Amino acid sequence: MTAEAVKNRNQTVDSTLPGNAEYDIIIIGAGPGGYVMAERAGHLGKKVLLIEKEYLGGVCLNWGCIPTKTLLNSAKHYVHAKEAPNFGVTTGDVQFDLTKAMAWKTEVIETLRGGIAFTMKKNKVTVINGTAKFLGPRKVQVGDKVYEGENVVIATGSSPFIPPIPGTEQLHVMTSTDILSIDKMPETLAVIGGGVIGIEFASFFSSLGVKVDVIEMLDEIIPFMDRGQAKEFRRALKGKVTFNLGCRVTAIDDHTVKYTTAKGEDKAIDADIVLMSVGRSPNLKDMGFEEAGLDFDRRGIKVDEQLRTNLPNVYAIGDVTGLSQLAHSASRMGEVALNTICGKRDRFRMNAIPWAVYSMPEVAGCGLTENQAKDAGHNVETASLPMTMSGRFLAENGKRGPGSVKVVKDADTDVLLGVHMVGAGCSEMIYGAAVMIEAELRVKDVQEIVFPHPTVGEVLRDVMFAL
Amino acid sequence: MTAEAVKNRNQTVDSTLPGNAEYDIIIIGAGPGGYVMAERAGHLGKKVLLIEKEYLGGVCLNWGCIPTKTLLNSAKHYVHAKEAPNFGVTTGDVQFDLTKAMAWKTEVIETLRGGIAFTMKKNKVTVINGTAKFLGPRKVQVGDKVYEGENVVIATGSSPFIPPIPGTEQLHVMTSTDILSIDKMPETLAVIGGGVIGIEFASFFSSLGVKVDVIEMLDEIIPFMDRGQAKEFRRALKGKVTFNLGCRVTAIDDHTVKYTTAKGEDKAIDADIVLMSVGRSPNLKDMGFEEAGLDFDRRGIKVDEQLRTNLPNVYAIGDVTGLSQLAHSASRMGEVALNTICGKRDRFRMNAIPWAVYSMPEVAGCGLTENQAKDAGHNVETASLPMTMSGRFLAENGKRGPGSVKVVKDADTDVLLGVHMVGAGCSEMIYGAAVMIEAELRVKDVQEIVFPHPTVGEVLRDVMFAL
Repeated sequence: MTAEAVKNRNQTVDSTLPGNAEYDIIIIGAGPGGYVMAERAGHLGKKVLLIEKEYLGGVCLNWGCIPTKTLLNSAKHYVHAKEAPNFGVTTGDVQFDLTKAMAWKTEVIETLRGGIAFTMKKNKVTVINGTAKFLGPRKVQVGDKVYEGENVVIATGSSPFIPPIPGTEQLHVMTSTDILSIDKMPETLAVIGGGVIGIEFASFFSSLGVKVDVIEMLDEIIPFMDRGQAKEFRRALKGKVTFNLGCRVTAIDDHTVKYTTAKGEDKAIDADIVLMSVGRSPNLKDMGFEEAGLDFDRRGIKVDEQLRTNLPNVYAIGDVTGLSQLAHSASRMGEVALNTICGKRDRFRMNAIPWAVYSMPEVAGCGLTENQAKDAGHNVETASLPMTMSGRFLAENGKRGPGSVKVVKDADTDVLLGVHMVGAGCSEMIYGAAVMIEAELRVKDVQEIVFPHPTVGEVLRDVMFAL
Repeated sequence: MTAEAVKNRNQTVDSTLPGNAEYDIIIIGAGPGGYVMAERAGHLGKKVLLIEKEYLGGVCLNWGCIPTKTLLNSAKHYVHAKEAPNFGVTTGDVQFDLTKAMAWKTEVIETLRGGIAFTMKKNKVTVINGTAKFLGPRKVQVGDKVYEGENVVIATGSSPFIPPIPGTEQLHVMTSTDILSIDKMPETLAVIGGGVIGIEFASFFSSLGVKVDVIEMLDEIIPFMDRGQAKEFRRALKGKVTFNLGCRVTAIDDHTVKYTTAKGEDKAIDADIVLMSVGRSPNLKDMGFEEAGLDFDRRGIKVDEQLRTNLPNVYAIGDVTGLSQLAHSASRMGEVALNTICGKRDRFRMNAIPWAVYSMPEVAGCGLTENQAKDAGHNVETASLPMTMSGRFLAENGKRGPGSVKVVKDADTDVLLGVHMVGAGCSEMIYGAAVMIEAELRVKDVQEIVFPHPTVGEVLRDVMFAL
């Protein structure tokens, strides 16, 4: 939080500004930050203007979460059909039809986009299509027109970061957006960057038989994961994906990706498609932020825990803040900003935000990892159990189904600090851990909660008894 | 709770009994009540004797939860393979191989049984195979030998109840145990009783193409479900299953099931197999309970909230208490009994025990239904949303994928009272509702918890904003 933001924290609506603006809230950007905030604000009777330069739903719906999970679901159908004989189901020849899978992906996107449009209408949110220019507090320009709002919310999101490597301008060097529109499966894929986006695509393509190489600069994939589980996860993907860790890409020469290993050796991989997934940058350019005196740097717009910027009645939410690049963080930030506008006490807490990777297997987590908890000065105790402890997991994934649940607690207070999972289906389980951590439950409390049998989730209960 | 039980509530170990018994705890029955209690007690260093007359894991592992869920998983593979073209995956002819599915079911059971045996050994629990006779406090006989324990825990479970209908003795009239060993798929199946067991088998067989009729005496299936969701659930099963509600079976004459409708008409259905699933009765006979002066009736052994019976240091847990016929209730009862033995305060609470039906679609719930909450005198407010509100659910289940989430709150206190779900995957989601209800969260609290996007679970968060 910046000094200005702190100073601004307890400030209410700036009374020096003229009242009776056309809108109560103007939101720039209709991603999961902007449209959720617009919906909730409209529901409360606020007059809301939502400005979007491309499609309702933003990157998340159109080129992110939703298309990737829809395609991963198709890939899961392929893998499950292939594995079905293990469970007594014969299927004949199983084939992946990229055109059909892409068509379903498009249909899902369009259905959800229609759903958001309907929700906006139902909640009386005015939506306009166009590129917004922020003129300062209260004023936003779209085309020739200047709109006035008591509050302005900047939710402009982020874009794929393209590192300055020679050769990235070639057509077969793609971002996560580009690769969602391919019309032919590649035979080989090089993924540059072993973060969430890179790994989900690596899982998708490799499970369909594409030869995939991941090149990652760090010594392990998914940097924010528990280190032990990241290794377990990588091993579960291995055999299908080749990992080149501690390697730095130096150039992409036609289809050849050149890189230097940790030991300094020069190597190269040939790939039909090269996916650049080294990270995303906040969208800060050409929107008038600098001219308006907004406090930001290359990591994002500076905000306090109520998502207030340094300018009065100007908020920023979502990826553009650089605080968290998750759709659900953006939505929650929008809710906190709205509560703040409405005079309700709320704050954006980072300690219990769950995350998930929708690969095969899935991974998910919430709260502190063992290392983070130690760094934060806790007297840490951890326990871990394999997912195959669950009868249901065994029945559905086989005896060698990869997966584990690890929990981190403060040994002095018995308070649960973190839950970390690898294994099929864990993306739908992790929210319960967010409930536990938000409610500041002790391990002793969780031990008294009854989990249904037979479920995979029971491993999370069992591991509480291993602490 | 009986008067005796209440009187006994604060009683500690009966000091008139001689000390230094061979075992700290003798447990009769190695189902999910008995073996979980044995494991936890052994882990704490207690000397435990576990007596089992058949197989470790009891009904749940050998003839209940685990085999049914394993078979239902095979059926899900069959249905998913059939539906795979919708998601861009083509297959050849999809066939269900009963022999292979049954073999996998057996392998799962044997693996888990081995797991329990290993856990018992690791926790130094003595396991003996035999039929126990309860001789009163401290004393249990197996064969010729009398074992002594400071505490005795009765965990003898329940058995399928066969109503006095003519014809039930025929070989093709089966209990849930019998039907798990068939070696040929029937063409037609009549299910008598529309509770959890009946519906799971109806879903299993109908999804594999068997013509299934359910005959239920009440006017709706799954009696403890939210009434609106039970109807929605039944509709989702319809088309594949024929429901005959408000009907009473009068006789089973060879393959003809004769019944009387609500209007008093006599009707009949022909079926290759007739499944009797009208309920389960506690196992109370021929075990010496009456002679020993144990307080019980046909519904079960009477216990207080610490699972104490009327006899000193004698506990009863699981189905035999008649309190709750759920494996996870039994396990929790075992934990509460153990805590009580160890002098730790604990009590078996019924308000947040989740349940699930593993059919297609799944259903699950936790806490009070709308009607239960009204009956309990709450000022009730409810909200409901379809599962297709979730982008992930839509992507994975299609636009007409059945499902909903309904929540019940106390309007005066804002406290969440119940969560009820219909839809694929909800069995793994419901535990989070148990956490919320156990932690006595208000709807306002849940609104501040971040759920991962895109997940199906998000509908549970969204519905909190519809209250």
